[in-house]
Amino acid sequence: MTENAWLWVGFVGMAIGSVLILAQMGRKTPGEEAHGVIHAIVPMIAAGLYLLMALNQGSVTIDHGREFLYARYIDWSITTPLLLTGLALTAMDDLRKRLGLVLGLIGADVYMILTGLEAGYSPTSSADKWIWFLMSCGAFLAVYWVIWWPLRAEARKAGNATTYTRNAAILSVLWLLYPVVFLFGTDGLLIISPALSAVCFTVLDLVSKVGYGMLSTAETNAKFS
Amino acid sequence: MTENAWLWVGFVGMAIGSVLILAQMGRKTPGEEAHGVIHAIVPMIAAGLYLLMALNQGSVTIDHGREFLYARYIDWSITTPLLLTGLALTAMDDLRKRLGLVLGLIGADVYMILTGLEAGYSPTSSADKWIWFLMSCGAFLAVYWVIWWPLRAEARKAGNATTYTRNAAILSVLWLLYPVVFLFGTDGLLIISPALSAVCFTVLDLVSKVGYGMLSTAETNAKFS
Amino acid sequence: MTENAWLWVGFVGMAIGSVLILAQMGRKTPGEEAHGVIHAIVPMIAAGLYLLMALNQGSVTIDHGREFLYARYIDWSITTPLLLTGLALTAMDDLRKRLGLVLGLIGADVYMILTGLEAGYSPTSSADKWIWFLMSCGAFLAVYWVIWWPLRAEARKAGNATTYTRNAAILSVLWLLYPVVFLFGTDGLLIISPALSAVCFTVLDLVSKVGYGMLSTAETNAKFS
Ligand SMILES: CC1=C(/C=C/C(C)=C/C=C/C(C)=C/C=O)C(C)(C)CCC1
Ligand SMILES: CC1=C(/C=C/C(C)=C/C=C/C(C)=C/C=O)C(C)(C)CCC1
Ligand SMILES: CC1=C(/C=C/C(C)=C/C=C/C(C)=C/C=O)C(C)(C)CCC1
Repeated sequence: MTENAWLWVGFVGMAIGSVLILAQMGRKTPGEEAHGVIHAIVPMIAAGLYLLMALNQGSVTIDHGREFLYARYIDWSITTPLLLTGLALTAMDDLRKRLGLVLGLIGADVYMILTGLEAGYSPTSSADKWIWFLMSCGAFLAVYWVIWWPLRAEARKAGNATTYTRNAAILSVLWLLYPVVFLFGTDGLLIISPALSAVCFTVLDLVSKVGYGMLSTAETNAKFS
Repeated sequence: MTENAWLWVGFVGMAIGSVLILAQMGRKTPGEEAHGVIHAIVPMIAAGLYLLMALNQGSVTIDHGREFLYARYIDWSITTPLLLTGLALTAMDDLRKRLGLVLGLIGADVYMILTGLEAGYSPTSSADKWIWFLMSCGAFLAVYWVIWWPLRAEARKAGNATTYTRNAAILSVLWLLYPVVFLFGTDGLLIISPALSAVCFTVLDLVSKVGYGMLSTAETNAKFS
Repeated sequence: MTENAWLWVGFVGMAIGSVLILAQMGRKTPGEEAHGVIHAIVPMIAAGLYLLMALNQGSVTIDHGREFLYARYIDWSITTPLLLTGLALTAMDDLRKRLGLVLGLIGADVYMILTGLEAGYSPTSSADKWIWFLMSCGAFLAVYWVIWWPLRAEARKAGNATTYTRNAAILSVLWLLYPVVFLFGTDGLLIISPALSAVCFTVLDLVSKVGYGMLSTAETNAKFS
């Protein structure tokens, strides 16, 4: 299958995924409804940006022939804050109790994606690319730190430790694969082909948006029933 | 009158409109003040983007000579969420009661505008244009659904049904004219001239931002007095 | 020192500044934590955008040779709303009491920066430049008005008048220097050199982000201890 075919797979998968989550989510309390809507919006946004890429409207050609799919970073800069907001809602019901912590978490995450965008955009094997890559990894460590220390402490206090730790672990492993694919793919060392990069990101995106979203929504349903 | 003249009319009209709403709005309660400020900000933003277009800084030439006024979509992507937030405040005083619903409404609305931007940007009579157009219309239907079902139910519960239904009806009819003008105008089938497109959008924008905003502000004043 | 050297000074200074504020801030109450995180995020964002400019990735060449550093305006459009939110938190503990006022303040501020971006981007000595410049100054006056009238009245009511008035005064003087440097610098009349523009903005940015941020954080610590 070509790169383009995988982008269409992403579009269709995300569209179906968002309908599934909309059908699955509960609406009994304001908190339950908000948590469900957040997980349903994530694949909708991704569907739009996969369509953009599939129609060849979400990329530019740079570096004498490299196709840079900037639309991925637009997707991630909106959907990763939503996913982390979902995780924070799994830890504690009222985010205002630790508003500063949530702001810091989302700030570090957006920082990671936007410095990652600059890393991807910088010329292959330039020093600039690795400066941005390191900045992005630093922000990623900050995200991990908030997830595994202060936010987990909140989850324990609120009696949500089991669900929270499971979700944090799944999310931590899945997200770690993104910089790995980046490193070997077209935006990094150019070792694997554009088509293989596209397979990896499509599968990763479907699992971390639709798969993870359905798991989290099922947990929320169970909690409020 | 030329297209450019109509853009200047838009600028002046929006500037006057925002001053009028600032003068008209009440400030007795936090809710009243917030609702008024929302309606006053809408034409201010539009004034800025009309000025940008009037100075020929808010468009690009694409498709061998078509002038694409992308600034319209920047305006709409900020002002339509504000107008819908105003409508939600007409339905219920505390948006947190249905935060998920409001998030979903604004999400669908921004989706409509950004897929509409892609529709407008795609080459005239390309398949891409109609794919994006249909996506945008789908999101528009989702906006209508939230307005006429769950949000109206909230308005009834809160005793705001009469005002809410009137505003929702006016908004629904006015907003429906946007895709119609789009369809025949320069971003769609290119049947009507750029000047006629500009007249239609200027008039529509003045009515749905300034006219509707003054009506809604007058209702809020009446409610809190 | 060259323009580029000053951009590196900005990067290093902002990076150190954000670490200092993170170390300094208290976390005893949700309000104290949120206020501290806001001041710590400001230099982090600036560090990212100074790095972008230092690597020559945050500018375009326009007007037959003028280098336009648009990254400054991206920085300011995010950091100035954060700084004003911090000032509003100094005035009153719960921003929801005057949500409309805070929205209006931030709206006027973002308006100032984005019309300023257009002013900077418009050709040197064109009429367009001065139209945008005047719009930006108008929005700046609105920012001053909110700071010195309604927000100061809130600070008095809440018993925060002394700290608030000091911070508002420092902020008002520092911020006033920005349009002055703009006016004589590369985005304005082109009277001073790019290197001198860069010195001025780097020093101003360090003082209004790191210096002011540390002062405000020290005050918050004192208040909650
Ligand atoms: C650290 C790092 C990265 C991390 C990316 C991550 C963690 C992305 C997660 C995306 C998700 C979860 C999307 C959707 O659901 C980049 C940007 C590849 C660039 C290089 C360094
Ligand atoms: C459905 C649809 C559209 C709808 C636009 C609307 C509904 C715009 C409303 C604008 C308002 C109300 C502005 C200001 O007050 C587009 C984008 C034209 C593109 C094609 C499909
Ligand atoms: C009025 C005016 C301006 C004001 C800028 C200000 C007030 C910037 C403040 C920046 C700060 C405080 C940054 C970081 O901490 C511009 C945009 C130069 C353009 C011309 C008119």
